[in-house]
Amino acid sequence: MTINESRIDVLIVGAGPAGLMVAYWMARCGIKARIIDKQKHKVYNGHADGLRSRTEEIFDSMGGDLQRRIEAEGYIFESFRTWVPGEHGRIVCAHRTNLMTDQIATLPSPFVSLTISQGRIERFLVDNIEETSGTLKVERGVSAESFTYDSSLQDDHDAYPIKVTLRTLSDTEVNDTIASYGYGGRYIVSKNNLAQDELKALESASPRKLGTEIVEARYLVGADGAHSWLRHNLGYKTQGSGLDSLWGVMDVVPITDFPDIRYPGFIEGEHGALMVLPRERNMTRIYVPFKPNTPEHHDRATIDLETIRCRAQTFFKGYTFNFKICEWWSVYQVGQRVSERSQNPSGRIFLAGDAVHMHSPKIGLGMNTSMQDGYNLGWKVALAAARAVRSPAELLATYEMERLPVAKTLVNFDRALWTNEGAMDPGEFQKTHEAFREFADGRKLMYPENLIISKTTGSQSAARKLIVGESFIHAKVLGHADSQLYWTTRLFQSDGRFRIVLMAGDIDAEEQFERVKHLCKRISAGGQADGRCNALVSRYPYPFEAPTRFQPACADPTGQQHPAITFDHERPLDSMISLLTIHSGQQYASRSIFDFPDTLRGPFDPDYHGWDYRRIFVDTASHLDRYCDGGAYDLWGVDRSRGALVVVRPDMHVGWVGEIEDVDGMENYFVSIFGH
Amino acid sequence: MTINESRIDVLIVGAGPAGLMVAYWMARCGIKARIIDKQKHKVYNGHADGLRSRTEEIFDSMGGDLQRRIEAEGYIFESFRTWVPGEHGRIVCAHRTNLMTDQIATLPSPFVSLTISQGRIERFLVDNIEETSGTLKVERGVSAESFTYDSSLQDDHDAYPIKVTLRTLSDTEVNDTIASYGYGGRYIVSKNNLAQDELKALESASPRKLGTEIVEARYLVGADGAHSWLRHNLGYKTQGSGLDSLWGVMDVVPITDFPDIRYPGFIEGEHGALMVLPRERNMTRIYVPFKPNTPEHHDRATIDLETIRCRAQTFFKGYTFNFKICEWWSVYQVGQRVSERSQNPSGRIFLAGDAVHMHSPKIGLGMNTSMQDGYNLGWKVALAAARAVRSPAELLATYEMERLPVAKTLVNFDRALWTNEGAMDPGEFQKTHEAFREFADGRKLMYPENLIISKTTGSQSAARKLIVGESFIHAKVLGHADSQLYWTTRLFQSDGRFRIVLMAGDIDAEEQFERVKHLCKRISAGGQADGRCNALVSRYPYPFEAPTRFQPACADPTGQQHPAITFDHERPLDSMISLLTIHSGQQYASRSIFDFPDTLRGPFDPDYHGWDYRRIFVDTASHLDRYCDGGAYDLWGVDRSRGALVVVRPDMHVGWVGEIEDVDGMENYFVSIFGH
Repeated sequence: MTINESRIDVLIVGAGPAGLMVAYWMARCGIKARIIDKQKHKVYNGHADGLRSRTEEIFDSMGGDLQRRIEAEGYIFESFRTWVPGEHGRIVCAHRTNLMTDQIATLPSPFVSLTISQGRIERFLVDNIEETSGTLKVERGVSAESFTYDSSLQDDHDAYPIKVTLRTLSDTEVNDTIASYGYGGRYIVSKNNLAQDELKALESASPRKLGTEIVEARYLVGADGAHSWLRHNLGYKTQGSGLDSLWGVMDVVPITDFPDIRYPGFIEGEHGALMVLPRERNMTRIYVPFKPNTPEHHDRATIDLETIRCRAQTFFKGYTFNFKICEWWSVYQVGQRVSERSQNPSGRIFLAGDAVHMHSPKIGLGMNTSMQDGYNLGWKVALAAARAVRSPAELLATYEMERLPVAKTLVNFDRALWTNEGAMDPGEFQKTHEAFREFADGRKLMYPENLIISKTTGSQSAARKLIVGESFIHAKVLGHADSQLYWTTRLFQSDGRFRIVLMAGDIDAEEQFERVKHLCKRISAGGQADGRCNALVSRYPYPFEAPTRFQPACADPTGQQHPAITFDHERPLDSMISLLTIHSGQQYASRSIFDFPDTLRGPFDPDYHGWDYRRIFVDTASHLDRYCDGGAYDLWGVDRSRGALVVVRPDMHVGWVGEIEDVDGMENYFVSIFGH
Repeated sequence: MTINESRIDVLIVGAGPAGLMVAYWMARCGIKARIIDKQKHKVYNGHADGLRSRTEEIFDSMGGDLQRRIEAEGYIFESFRTWVPGEHGRIVCAHRTNLMTDQIATLPSPFVSLTISQGRIERFLVDNIEETSGTLKVERGVSAESFTYDSSLQDDHDAYPIKVTLRTLSDTEVNDTIASYGYGGRYIVSKNNLAQDELKALESASPRKLGTEIVEARYLVGADGAHSWLRHNLGYKTQGSGLDSLWGVMDVVPITDFPDIRYPGFIEGEHGALMVLPRERNMTRIYVPFKPNTPEHHDRATIDLETIRCRAQTFFKGYTFNFKICEWWSVYQVGQRVSERSQNPSGRIFLAGDAVHMHSPKIGLGMNTSMQDGYNLGWKVALAAARAVRSPAELLATYEMERLPVAKTLVNFDRALWTNEGAMDPGEFQKTHEAFREFADGRKLMYPENLIISKTTGSQSAARKLIVGESFIHAKVLGHADSQLYWTTRLFQSDGRFRIVLMAGDIDAEEQFERVKHLCKRISAGGQADGRCNALVSRYPYPFEAPTRFQPACADPTGQQHPAITFDHERPLDSMISLLTIHSGQQYASRSIFDFPDTLRGPFDPDYHGWDYRRIFVDTASHLDRYCDGGAYDLWGVDRSRGALVVVRPDMHVGWVGEIEDVDGMENYFVSIFGH
């Protein structure tokens, strides 16, 4: 038997939320990649279900239908209720928190936190990846069996030092978890619980081809869950421990007269608190703590759905609680563990998601952190694979630098939620939640100074609230040339490019406009004897091919006419650095984009696309949209008259902030990444 | 050769915007229907392109992805610019109108007017119909050849008085307008100009089966365009005339330094004005008037894209204007015509859309009116076909009563826009637009008193701005039981049901709450000796089967367990009348839905679904959404303390308005439609 051997740039093991985010970047940047998962089926129901606004911002930036589908199906978290035992053996509502009121004010985002099943999120991600790339598909029922790493090649980023043996599992080795009819449940999904798009995808799935093959890869990503095969093989230990506490969890359509069944909250009982989490499609998720030192507690295997139901009912004192429809249920033990490393020393093999951090599902951050791991990693691997950076190793090293501390904070946060016995105290829960709030909301991730985070070469005071290293704060702005409305998430599309955001300030003032013009001269100056342009904004060519989604459907048979005709009539991306201007001049209606320096309008395509009308924007109030309120500069802590210069990384983190004159600092930022 | 004969309830001839809207209702209500179109391909590019907010409200009510897809692709109309000849042979901007500013204030809608190609709208409608019904698909390349109508059966609505001969056209009879590559153009679409979903649909289309068949139908709808086959066969004349004026129109990606190319507006020239209409995907539509008494003008056949390009360039004085990419172009003569009738005397054969009203494309109302024709007609036909009403003939007669006058006003509106020579004067255009604004925005359609519009039995003053006969004014409200946010378009789903909207007023006031309780007693009273419930809210059973979209994917093989498990976990619709409460009590957080009368919570399903948490809503400000601002009662002209009773028809027009005590008037409204 000959074993098939092939070469790819990137192999992703595990097609959960973390692996799919890495795969998105591969699709978007046209990197030769594969993504495998040993399960025959994707997750459909249950599992993780909380989506934080920062993750939604990323989704919106990934384009296509992604975020709109999330919003259409998700369930909004509005307030949090706490119920406690009251008189006459009846629970009473003790506390209502408008959890989100302050959040909206202090941690603004275009999006609100939602509950929606991990299964739906994975569906939307898979669709986005397939539409974008046209070819990259998750290979299911495929297991990574073993791998070798030739460390003598580790510094040669053109080489393929990684060899992985893949095996397609036989039908007897994979669980077929789809039932044509039934309750659904712990390991089984009923077809009736599948959305139409899931059914369609299931029916059109091609059969797996059995066999073994060897894949050579330049980079390897293990997003293969808490029991990570790759982590074990790399020999990385996990730190932390399990707690002596068992929980049941179920997604049910409740039949109850408990009035707050559609609000998230706690019901305190004698031993711990039950947690209510309403979600999409008329379901409520119930987390049920088991009493320590009971028979169930000692023999986890004896816990079934009936045990969970009965235990839950003891909490709803004075109210009825029952259900017939249960889409999913499970039992788990609380524990917190974190991997000692999330990439190998050469930085060519990576771990992401649950392979790095394992904890309880209560804070709705596990899946979000996992996806943000993958999102942080993917573009770095893509740039390295495309040989677009000065030092791939240095860029890739920022992954662990930035994300491993986040994993540790996450696990500490989760640990702080629990008593030593593994129980949960609602009051303490609130306090801990408060302490970690900015972290939880993705506003305080504390990425350290590194190749792509330069805190000292500019001037943080120019944009006080756009903290270098943290995620950009998004706002809605108005197109100067077209009056269309744009969330900045859409301006910062996840296409691998860095953005220079010129917050040009009040250009109605002559002096300020002069500052802007001067800046433009400095960043567009260049043109060497050999014809190579050294202007900052066009110096580094965009290294990626356009993904299928943005290519013409048919090639021109004559090779003559309109090579650029595509459905969207978008011009090809030409530079690694995109310059966007957001000014605050309120007389914008009397100034056309042709009154701005050429540089700010971007390159002109005399053949097909003419000028680009989406380069210059205004921070002003639109009468068409209450969210476009002219408050962006305040949100960013930028002086409305003086403006600022901000560099936004491909993952929408702020890489550098400075005054409009701080061009040298900004240029050095890019030179250190891309070279001269 | 035997000719295949079959029976269906409804045959729709023509699958443009009007026909598709009728088809939507057939899909949603599970009526046995077919929809044919003689073109081999749907419209992909060009043609109509304006979408008014009222139509978007309808789309949102139709559910699924429809409105979200529109918003994702559409181009917003923000302001209107007028350019006139200036000094030095250069045009100058003379006028900027924030067309929409006042509109937002006085004609509120959740949605803003957009430009988006008719082709995309048809795609979204077709997808919605197919997903909803699972079976109803447009049959393309099929022609209605002849028909007979047996008028002796006209009063028997169980009978099939209509016989239509259908023939599938051969490949030589239909134009294949898809080119694999090229410019696109007047009759040809390039595959590169197709969206991914269109390409996919095109590739998976099944081949047509040639042949002739006879279809017997109970109802027939002709939505077959300006040259309507059905209108000709019914012998209905059109009234009106053509004007001596020719226009060219093209959708291009402009290459220009004209600064307002992304704003709608006019450029005045020596003979008439050119119109600029920016649209989605970086294109701008240009309407170019031809000069009277020129060679082109006398021989329309000589006008090609180059002629239009050159003529357009003469308007952009002082600026360059050119293009290489043109997706579509055409030449048309201005004219206004309206059919003398839009249904036959028995009311079983109908005309809709361009078959009734023909006019210039400039006001962006043709397609909107066509779709609203179909939307108005479809649910009435569905109710008749399902034998759910007392007098099908009387219900169906309201179609022509309501829509033919709209067609006439539309044509008058269009006529008023033009000079006698068929030219257009920008100043006059604005004035005319102003005069017809409320009509154009769908706020003043002047439907007359009829079976389903009762202006005298209630009390208009209870909801001053919800004018009986006009379309409901939508607002965003908060779910009392779940704090989710709902546009009323989503509460009034287009499922064929009438809604009683109880605007319960300030229920925090004891006296007001007593009024509400008393009302509940009156509309829920009943229960006759024979067990038939005569309570108003449950008296008339929902006559339609659940469409595929809402059915379980798989039948229970044992017939025992969970007949009701579906993906959405929605309970089956049970009554033709749905009761929704929207109160204005600001202490809502301290009152649970169980503090309301049973009737307002809707029926309880003890088996699977429990209580319905989407029956009671609050008009209050949400901190999560700037559009949910607690201003709905004001928008509706309803006294916040006293409330009102409003009946909303299946098409979201207001059928009846009264005080909370006016139950008899309201009951009579329903009795006249559905009987006792």
